[in-house]
Amino acid sequence: MTSKNKGTLYGVGVGPGDPDLITLKAARLISNATTIAYPAPEGGDSFARDIAKAHIAEGTKEISIAVPMRPERKAAQDAYDVGAVEVRAQLEAGNDVVFLCEGDPFFYGTFMYLYDRLAGDFETDIIPGVTSIVACACRLKQPLVSRNDVLTVLAGPMSDEELEARLKLGGSFAIMKVGRHLPRLRSLLDKLDLMKRAGYVERATLANEKAIPLAELEDATAPYFSMILIYDGDEAWKN
Amino acid sequence: MTSKNKGTLYGVGVGPGDPDLITLKAARLISNATTIAYPAPEGGDSFARDIAKAHIAEGTKEISIAVPMRPERKAAQDAYDVGAVEVRAQLEAGNDVVFLCEGDPFFYGTFMYLYDRLAGDFETDIIPGVTSIVACACRLKQPLVSRNDVLTVLAGPMSDEELEARLKLGGSFAIMKVGRHLPRLRSLLDKLDLMKRAGYVERATLANEKAIPLAELEDATAPYFSMILIYDGDEAWKN
Repeated sequence: MTSKNKGTLYGVGVGPGDPDLITLKAARLISNATTIAYPAPEGGDSFARDIAKAHIAEGTKEISIAVPMRPERKAAQDAYDVGAVEVRAQLEAGNDVVFLCEGDPFFYGTFMYLYDRLAGDFETDIIPGVTSIVACACRLKQPLVSRNDVLTVLAGPMSDEELEARLKLGGSFAIMKVGRHLPRLRSLLDKLDLMKRAGYVERATLANEKAIPLAELEDATAPYFSMILIYDGDEAWKN
Repeated sequence: MTSKNKGTLYGVGVGPGDPDLITLKAARLISNATTIAYPAPEGGDSFARDIAKAHIAEGTKEISIAVPMRPERKAAQDAYDVGAVEVRAQLEAGNDVVFLCEGDPFFYGTFMYLYDRLAGDFETDIIPGVTSIVACACRLKQPLVSRNDVLTVLAGPMSDEELEARLKLGGSFAIMKVGRHLPRLRSLLDKLDLMKRAGYVERATLANEKAIPLAELEDATAPYFSMILIYDGDEAWKN
């Protein structure tokens, strides 16, 4: 059991990017928070904080967790170890902490790294958010899945072999984290004759968004926040 | 091209059930709407309208699309044919229409039935919402997917054979529309030794919610709004 005198750890999804896609509940929790925490790339600005900034009251204590962008998992885990110590100190002192998480906290979200380290010792509450997948489908203006359709969520860093095994099963797909894997994914989708069913979205719901059929994308590379959606059926682009 | 004198059709996700999980953008669009539309089970109340009701201004024109709950697809499609005629008349007259959709409009959402019938003739804007899948994961208090995990979304009405083929591939799973399929799904997950990794949620984020490990569920049947999440890894229930 956790003590009533300790603070509560809130994991709050702030959605895909447009600050207007924050939920009423998240906005209220952030506005009322005395301490917030968020991840930020080492030496850069926090995307989650940027999405939520209109709701952060002056004088709010902020804990920024500087996450190295190197591919080795250990570096990021070390950063969350350090961040968890700071957050723990606040919770032990009886202060609630609101952790801001891009998208949804438990759907490829960063909140789980804090949760794993602290949930055993403190009360927690997790507030779901709008995921980038549904934001991308809305921005492409094509219904993604309906009725009993199967949707499979894949990731760009997976090997061609793993991706192909899943893609061959049929249904609809979201391939997240396209980024530098774009050329390889394009070749694979070409080979599997899936290009005509593929949509591409980068920076969904932000001012510099791009949302087009993948076949029309001329860029050779993609930014980190990019996704491919593959629609079931032969004709994805009706409208 | 669509005429500037016609109204715009908005598809607005109102989230999984808790009215506090509506986005700021959805709340504003609903508050400012002069005409809203929503599906309702024939002879019953609209869940989407119920979620959004605090934002519906007095005097707003409402188009309720009475959807028969029979399994035959044609009955529901006929209902949307009728609803689309009413919505079309408003759009032709230059009035915007805000369609309320449980969860997200293009992620197993009902908006697509109107969209298919009207998008060719009118301007549209689709506002993503919080899906029931991420709401369920938050309420079970277990991170669903991280890093490059694969997630597959399945549906209770699928055959055992189809479900088994997907479940055997590994990764994490969401099985939507559990409802009357609960006993059959339970047997299948038992057979595949997946019960210890399965969580069960009904009426996520509502007052009468249930969110527990599936193995602890004593009920023989499940309501329509119910879901099973299957977590990757051997030990789903850590906290």
